[in-house]
Amino acid sequence: MTLKERDKKHLWHPLTQHKTHPETIAIVKAKGCVLTDEDGNEYIDAIASWYTCMYGHCNDDITSRVYEQMQQLDQVVFSGFTHEPAVKLSEAIIEILPKNQNKIFFSDNGSTSVEIGIKMALQYHFNKGDKRNTLIAFEDGFHGDTFGAMSVSGLSVYNGPFEDFFMDVKRIPTPNGKNNDAILNQLKDIVSQDKVAGFVYEPLVQGAAAMKMHTAEGLDMILKFCKANNIITVADEVMTGFGKTGHYFASDYVDTKPDIMCLSKALTAGLLPMAITSCSQDVYDAFYSDEMSKGLFHGHTYSGNPLACTAALAGIELLKSEEIQSNIKRIINSHQKFGARIKTHPKVLSIRQTGIIFALDLNIEMERYGNLRDKLFHFFMKNGVCLRPLGNTVYILAPYVITDTQLQKVYQVIEDALEIV
Amino acid sequence: MTLKERDKKHLWHPLTQHKTHPETIAIVKAKGCVLTDEDGNEYIDAIASWYTCMYGHCNDDITSRVYEQMQQLDQVVFSGFTHEPAVKLSEAIIEILPKNQNKIFFSDNGSTSVEIGIKMALQYHFNKGDKRNTLIAFEDGFHGDTFGAMSVSGLSVYNGPFEDFFMDVKRIPTPNGKNNDAILNQLKDIVSQDKVAGFVYEPLVQGAAAMKMHTAEGLDMILKFCKANNIITVADEVMTGFGKTGHYFASDYVDTKPDIMCLSKALTAGLLPMAITSCSQDVYDAFYSDEMSKGLFHGHTYSGNPLACTAALAGIELLKSEEIQSNIKRIINSHQKFGARIKTHPKVLSIRQTGIIFALDLNIEMERYGNLRDKLFHFFMKNGVCLRPLGNTVYILAPYVITDTQLQKVYQVIEDALEIV
Repeated sequence: MTLKERDKKHLWHPLTQHKTHPETIAIVKAKGCVLTDEDGNEYIDAIASWYTCMYGHCNDDITSRVYEQMQQLDQVVFSGFTHEPAVKLSEAIIEILPKNQNKIFFSDNGSTSVEIGIKMALQYHFNKGDKRNTLIAFEDGFHGDTFGAMSVSGLSVYNGPFEDFFMDVKRIPTPNGKNNDAILNQLKDIVSQDKVAGFVYEPLVQGAAAMKMHTAEGLDMILKFCKANNIITVADEVMTGFGKTGHYFASDYVDTKPDIMCLSKALTAGLLPMAITSCSQDVYDAFYSDEMSKGLFHGHTYSGNPLACTAALAGIELLKSEEIQSNIKRIINSHQKFGARIKTHPKVLSIRQTGIIFALDLNIEMERYGNLRDKLFHFFMKNGVCLRPLGNTVYILAPYVITDTQLQKVYQVIEDALEIV
Repeated sequence: MTLKERDKKHLWHPLTQHKTHPETIAIVKAKGCVLTDEDGNEYIDAIASWYTCMYGHCNDDITSRVYEQMQQLDQVVFSGFTHEPAVKLSEAIIEILPKNQNKIFFSDNGSTSVEIGIKMALQYHFNKGDKRNTLIAFEDGFHGDTFGAMSVSGLSVYNGPFEDFFMDVKRIPTPNGKNNDAILNQLKDIVSQDKVAGFVYEPLVQGAAAMKMHTAEGLDMILKFCKANNIITVADEVMTGFGKTGHYFASDYVDTKPDIMCLSKALTAGLLPMAITSCSQDVYDAFYSDEMSKGLFHGHTYSGNPLACTAALAGIELLKSEEIQSNIKRIINSHQKFGARIKTHPKVLSIRQTGIIFALDLNIEMERYGNLRDKLFHFFMKNGVCLRPLGNTVYILAPYVITDTQLQKVYQVIEDALEIV
């Protein structure tokens, strides 16, 4: 029996309605930017396996270091204990994070990193005797699938069974260059009515909202308002972090730095699950006390897993290398040329780009979305490129090691797809 | 600078008040049951690094298989894709789970596995047009630190800043052999007043409640009541799973099987973070529909990570081996002998044991708890044994590969500790 047949027996896949989408593709090999399925078909991984494997799949430099660590120290309790991979990673990541970030707290995925960010924001005020129970978030944001993370995400059609349990969240639009005054007025309204603990946001690019992008200048205005009102700012850089925007972090484009940052996905270079919630010394200090109950009593069993820390450390060293930095510039330039060529195509409604993240919206009526997404996905895969459209948006977020030839193939298959929609 | 000094600069540890507990121990090596710190001191890991590394640290059989996988396929999106490690693991785990379990859903830690269990329970009813918003849980339960998981955990002194956001949870006592009627009456009261979606429980042993144990017969009565009232039962076997109770799962001791099970910790043999929420075909079928919105729209980026699946598969094969099964029996017998010897000691209030999990409560007044826990921990470590008391409870949960000599050393250090408290 094939793997995809055996898969159907016991596996329940994430974000999948198995009745309408019963088929999977069984991947048996991954190397660099190429995935190979069980029938021998090859696909360019143009979304870097959900924005993770930015230095290429099965990167020998990373895997050999993780294997070495695996033979030395695999795992140990991270309460009351520490180890070299965590220490080295903390030093390396603080060096590339915005200057105001000084402490890191481990967890296992983007959702938990956001839960921890929310808990830090709420307890920061609580520990100072100022109980604040409202959060602000962007419309159309996505921050994860656990209850806290779902609460600050934009309301979706899939939240029906759970909405009653969401926390009190006020939503503001993303800044589009024209609505700054309206946003500022809305923020003033919110703080006049509610005690706001924190603002949770994806800076510059909202991934799950089909790579929706907003201005650094508008975001900076919002962050300045938050600082002035002692609202803890929580930047969810799970998707944007580690070079994808052209800088190490999207927050590097914004003058006002977040109090807290959430990191995952490319953090571990596409190898293993891990997340980090980093914060400023000021946030940390609010928990540092003779009272046990002022501590952050959060912990996952594999927090600070030495193997994941080793992968992350290897990833950061690659990210800082001249080779990867020059690759990032090359991809940015390449996307710009592709954008200039494609933007006038009659089937293209608009294009947008931040760093190596490129998105185009198709000029197609809404009612055709449902089938369109699947039709496009199958067309791309049939032509050897793994791209997963979101609604009528096609985006590219490829590993930094993608070659020019591979990039041209990705562009070509997108242009070919315009002919069939 | 030593690692433990460098640690202080940027690391915020889980479940730690850094002001009162500033020191960490830096572990540089782990092999079998032994941890080694940066000063060369060795410790028997008598809690299996939070109940994870049951087949021993840096087990060559496991690490070599994970390294092989790491060179073949490190990671791929698990929506619409599949791979051999996930398929093989699904087949292997369904074989050892209670017979009614038929589907598995991946996530990254115990907290998320419980969040998914809760979401399955709520949406199960919602999808059938029967909106139910109350959950039942045991007093003193612990199910994790994300908002959903915190909600069903026993209220703790550390929940102050977050309680306003918890879901509606009714708490019942654990069955102690005498309170069955009282529990049944309370359950009848609850269902007469509230629409109960699910019951979340740790079967037989509540880990964070200092290894509190309850009877299978009492639990079975509760589960039968739940079945009769169409309340989805969610067994949190994150701590108890994979042989610790003497059977593969604690649920194997109970006639009535859970609808949903949460698994993590020893699942991946102490190597990597991963969790599974398994369920019956009946639960799965409630989500299987032509309507997209009836699907479970939950997903983490590294869901079904091939490396973690490989570690888990290797772990299950070891668990089923004659060698490990005979080790489990050996440890159970050894603990029983130790229990018989120690239970009459004047400083011992009570002992209890389920499988290889052994706990003893010290006969010490409450007001001395605060320092007592730290005093005991330091005494154990100074004498080469890693045991982490919970309040006035000392428990042993050692890897299955612990030798008789190592076990005797663990017992001896506990007996010696009784002389200093």
